[in-house]
Amino acid sequence: MGAPTARAVTRHPALRSLRCIRCGDHQPVDDHPRGCPSCLKYGTPANLACVYGEPDATDGVRLPYAGAPTLGEGGTPLLRFDTTGDLDLRLKWEGANPTGSHKDRFSALAVARALHAGYEVVAAASSGNAGVSLAAYCARAGLGCEIAVTDDTPGHVVGLMRDLGAEVVVFPEAEQRWRHLAGHLDSRTVLPVTNVAVPPVGSSPFGIEGYKMLAVEIRADLDGRLPDWVVVPASRGDLAWGVYLGFRELCGSGPVPHLCLVEPFPRVSAVLGGADPHGSFPGGTSVMPSLAGNSVALQALEAVRLSAGRAEVVDDAAATAGTRRVWRSGLPLEPSSAAAVVAVEQARAAGAMADGSLVVALATAHGMKGM
Amino acid sequence: MGAPTARAVTRHPALRSLRCIRCGDHQPVDDHPRGCPSCLKYGTPANLACVYGEPDATDGVRLPYAGAPTLGEGGTPLLRFDTTGDLDLRLKWEGANPTGSHKDRFSALAVARALHAGYEVVAAASSGNAGVSLAAYCARAGLGCEIAVTDDTPGHVVGLMRDLGAEVVVFPEAEQRWRHLAGHLDSRTVLPVTNVAVPPVGSSPFGIEGYKMLAVEIRADLDGRLPDWVVVPASRGDLAWGVYLGFRELCGSGPVPHLCLVEPFPRVSAVLGGADPHGSFPGGTSVMPSLAGNSVALQALEAVRLSAGRAEVVDDAAATAGTRRVWRSGLPLEPSSAAAVVAVEQARAAGAMADGSLVVALATAHGMKGM
Ligand SMILES: [Zn+2]
Ligand SMILES: [Zn+2]
Repeated sequence: MGAPTARAVTRHPALRSLRCIRCGDHQPVDDHPRGCPSCLKYGTPANLACVYGEPDATDGVRLPYAGAPTLGEGGTPLLRFDTTGDLDLRLKWEGANPTGSHKDRFSALAVARALHAGYEVVAAASSGNAGVSLAAYCARAGLGCEIAVTDDTPGHVVGLMRDLGAEVVVFPEAEQRWRHLAGHLDSRTVLPVTNVAVPPVGSSPFGIEGYKMLAVEIRADLDGRLPDWVVVPASRGDLAWGVYLGFRELCGSGPVPHLCLVEPFPRVSAVLGGADPHGSFPGGTSVMPSLAGNSVALQALEAVRLSAGRAEVVDDAAATAGTRRVWRSGLPLEPSSAAAVVAVEQARAAGAMADGSLVVALATAHGMKGM
Repeated sequence: MGAPTARAVTRHPALRSLRCIRCGDHQPVDDHPRGCPSCLKYGTPANLACVYGEPDATDGVRLPYAGAPTLGEGGTPLLRFDTTGDLDLRLKWEGANPTGSHKDRFSALAVARALHAGYEVVAAASSGNAGVSLAAYCARAGLGCEIAVTDDTPGHVVGLMRDLGAEVVVFPEAEQRWRHLAGHLDSRTVLPVTNVAVPPVGSSPFGIEGYKMLAVEIRADLDGRLPDWVVVPASRGDLAWGVYLGFRELCGSGPVPHLCLVEPFPRVSAVLGGADPHGSFPGGTSVMPSLAGNSVALQALEAVRLSAGRAEVVDDAAATAGTRRVWRSGLPLEPSSAAAVVAVEQARAAGAMADGSLVVALATAHGMKGM
């Protein structure tokens, strides 16, 4: 059968440093799974973001690495989706990515980074989609892959990861996965690419850059227009932050679309209402595992703050009912994706999205994997 | 939630008639699930194909209907896939379609035809992917959907169809599904879009036209080149025939790529070796249900004959081993798709594909649905 075509991975020539999204300190282009070292010392960890030198001549966004093995991620359709009101709602159907979720955009760049830096194994904690995606991209690149899951991950999904060549390790609690990943931090052969920190910082800034292409595609799908709102299911905010970075790069210093984060119980909403961002937020979800977690990462808050956005809580009952309705309209979305559609309905009912708004909801994954 | 945007479905202005692929008789643009009425009388049923008037000015293919609700089908990636030899093998990754298989291309046009002709329900026999796809497109279009399956269809897959709003009816034997569909033939409200005939003719010629876009995309993906071979998993040959029609329309009277049909036991291969095309071909498959069936449809033979192609048998053991290897290289293909890769290896080993050939294998569906 043979390995896929080996290609030289190249680093973007203008990629200059990583900058802390809290304190602004610059760090060398390297792997910092715990986020900014300066902020970590003060117990307020924060993710880093890629900093490029002179702006590109091209009318798009820059990505940190090129030339890695690909599975054809991105270029997903933007679908019209009428609701009963006066919003113009479109769905960005990320289920049409190679392994069925938006995570493929992240995996492509996280694996590119691992290849470029010479790692042998990529490790991640996952509730499902991320693990399947990363397993596929590691296999495609000829790298090893280790996925840490919780013991409530469906056996069929664990089977998908293993069939794609990943080693799957199982833990009773979500945070145990992070501690396990943190055990790889002194390794120069194993690269953790998802969050390892408590409180969380988020995932690899190189992988997150992959989500910037969503901004490029959405603008192109809309013939150059920008949506008023982009609705993003969120846990620690990797996707929301990446989408923000993409629009920021496209828009220069101009306004970007407002981001509406979707969460299963108040976290970002609570902080926006005055709660301590470093606190623990009570609540849970049994139908949206990819949106679980009781803490807030700064990048999620920053995506909202810098886009003058908001957050919308969609609970399990509303997500379940919404999933059923969305499937009956022909879209096999997983509940965390259907929750984005429900969030739009709720936000409109609450007057938080004006009539006539152009709204893009990110339908993050298909629900056909048995999750 | 509301229904998707209703759009007017329009018929291609140059669509003039349907022509029998055996006798050449023309039929009006209507639904003929038993195929050509003239040939049916002689017990040698054959599918019809769309006939258009004056050639388009555009450099592409014509499709019979436009403006139907879509889920964003098509535009799938063409991936490089090295093998150990001297072939340049690419995979057209149809798993990146909205419901995870090439069937979405068929469903979009079959449903467009049903909408345009005023049917209320679309009916089909399916081993899995076609049913999930059709259920989704019917839901998207606001049409009813009935899927006839055999009782060995996994419960999870039946669940997907039902969650997408389809009525699923279960039969012990494959051919019972066809007789059930044939019971709708006098209806003007229920349109069967997959084969209803024994011996089989194949599926709706309007739906099959959707596969022509594969030829357009493959040529564009290859920057205008044509592959030497296109490798197509086949049962009754809907996909192979549609791909042939696409290349024929692109190539005018010039040569088209050779089609290599992939089958789980000798059917087309047997006929090419001299067997009676109307016979029953012994054999079965437990891992490639979408390639099952003991008879040969004329359209499958014609796709081979008119492209100067061939057929390759990939048995269950080879498909299973190939599936495992393909997943370990990062591609979660279902076994009938992995069989296309195995077919290339076998054909090369047998000297049937010359060194240096540019080969596109159709990776027809992902294997993440639990089938
Ligand atoms: Zn800092
Ligand atoms: Zn005829």
